[in-house]
Amino acid sequence: MTQTPQHAFDEALQLTYNGETNRFQGRTSSAYANMIGPFGGLTAAAMLKAALEHRDRQGEPVTLTVNFAAAIQDGDYEIEAQATRTGRSTQHWYMSMWQAGEIVTTATAIFAMRKPTWGATDLHPPIFPAQGETKPFHSPIMPPWTKQYRFYMADDFENLVQTAQPTSETLQSIQDNPPRPLDFLSLTAMCDVFIPRIFVRRSQFVPAGTVAFTVYYHADSAVLAEHGTAEVMGQARGNRFYNRYFDQSAEIWTRSGDLLATSTQVVYFKE
Amino acid sequence: MTQTPQHAFDEALQLTYNGETNRFQGRTSSAYANMIGPFGGLTAAAMLKAALEHRDRQGEPVTLTVNFAAAIQDGDYEIEAQATRTGRSTQHWYMSMWQAGEIVTTATAIFAMRKPTWGATDLHPPIFPAQGETKPFHSPIMPPWTKQYRFYMADDFENLVQTAQPTSETLQSIQDNPPRPLDFLSLTAMCDVFIPRIFVRRSQFVPAGTVAFTVYYHADSAVLAEHGTAEVMGQARGNRFYNRYFDQSAEIWTRSGDLLATSTQVVYFKE
Repeated sequence: MTQTPQHAFDEALQLTYNGETNRFQGRTSSAYANMIGPFGGLTAAAMLKAALEHRDRQGEPVTLTVNFAAAIQDGDYEIEAQATRTGRSTQHWYMSMWQAGEIVTTATAIFAMRKPTWGATDLHPPIFPAQGETKPFHSPIMPPWTKQYRFYMADDFENLVQTAQPTSETLQSIQDNPPRPLDFLSLTAMCDVFIPRIFVRRSQFVPAGTVAFTVYYHADSAVLAEHGTAEVMGQARGNRFYNRYFDQSAEIWTRSGDLLATSTQVVYFKE
Repeated sequence: MTQTPQHAFDEALQLTYNGETNRFQGRTSSAYANMIGPFGGLTAAAMLKAALEHRDRQGEPVTLTVNFAAAIQDGDYEIEAQATRTGRSTQHWYMSMWQAGEIVTTATAIFAMRKPTWGATDLHPPIFPAQGETKPFHSPIMPPWTKQYRFYMADDFENLVQTAQPTSETLQSIQDNPPRPLDFLSLTAMCDVFIPRIFVRRSQFVPAGTVAFTVYYHADSAVLAEHGTAEVMGQARGNRFYNRYFDQSAEIWTRSGDLLATSTQVVYFKE
């Protein structure tokens, strides 16, 4: 194998830190472009990265909430990150992304020192179809960022979005393309790869965009490092669609049934 | 019926607004005291109220995320609320609660103008036991704030927390005591009334406290006003318990099966 250049995901997340202003300079990436603006999962990862790389940071991410306040224009942006409170074992963060003097995205995060405790997983892992029963989940009409992932699903894109589905729940495998070792940044982005549930549910496209996105991390960096470049399993479903907004929840599992992250989001839709 | 004085919930949420400083002055309430500090659901409602009562506010709450950054001391606090971005149909907020010059709680919220759209509820409403099959869910060892609610459950407190449960999922009715017309503030607090799932799951008490709490609202003020003082149904469950933190998710339903809110939280625990 020849040496590979930097992964597109890392390239897209390059931030230049100015310790004096508490600000990070970044730039949107055409590789991770969505229909309009950048893929939200990448923006969320950038917000987390600003806290992760801040010199005051202590501990590892336990939760991240990102609010998408306005459309992000292609080009430069700045992220301001500040520790709002640092305790003995937890640290709280507030981040804001700026373009042209206005806030386009805000986020809060909690970092913590983990310690071994009693543990359990009450959620049941989904049963993923055998390899012969899934196929690549792709379509030419899917936006550019989806090419940076390998998705496999029992269903195909056309059937999923063109045929009325009894529920909005889907199950798919997710892997960076090419594979990249899993970390908090890529795990964050993977929580946002699911097709908006309203497309699945209504078997039609309507204008839709995530306005808020939350991730709860159930792993530490050692667990993620051990996971390596393997695919993960993602399951997502809609809960309620009501007067312009709906919420969807999702989980990211390893093939062996370890729950790595739970996630929720609220999505704007029209009509 | 004689005229009743102001409800304890409204008394506990009295905020004095200083339009010049963008700050609201409030005070903790002994009626809503928890084991340590105030009931988190009340703190969350206070954070939301600061945005709701701000003169710049437009629209109604779609989502609220509250991060509990440090223990709140009994006494006075201040909440600073600022609109971070106002769009045509959505408005983004950041709130911080201060005591003694330090941040003790932060929050973000999104408000929006709702419009009638296609709608659906994919989550299945729980089947609540008939009235004869539930009993008041109370115990002298439950903290003071629980007395401000009427809870009914098929199980009783002693059995629930002293006997190993097969799952951490519970179902209960929830109503202010005395009844109070439902609004965004009380709905927010009701999303946080569930016993930490770790007590249910392990049938023992361990130190535990919510660090982050998110609510997605699936109703507008007209729907809540129509609901009036009736009880709601709350269902909650734990997802994963891992190295000091676990997450739980919850839903608030009307008796007739309307989903009013979905909520998640991440909780610190010891051992």
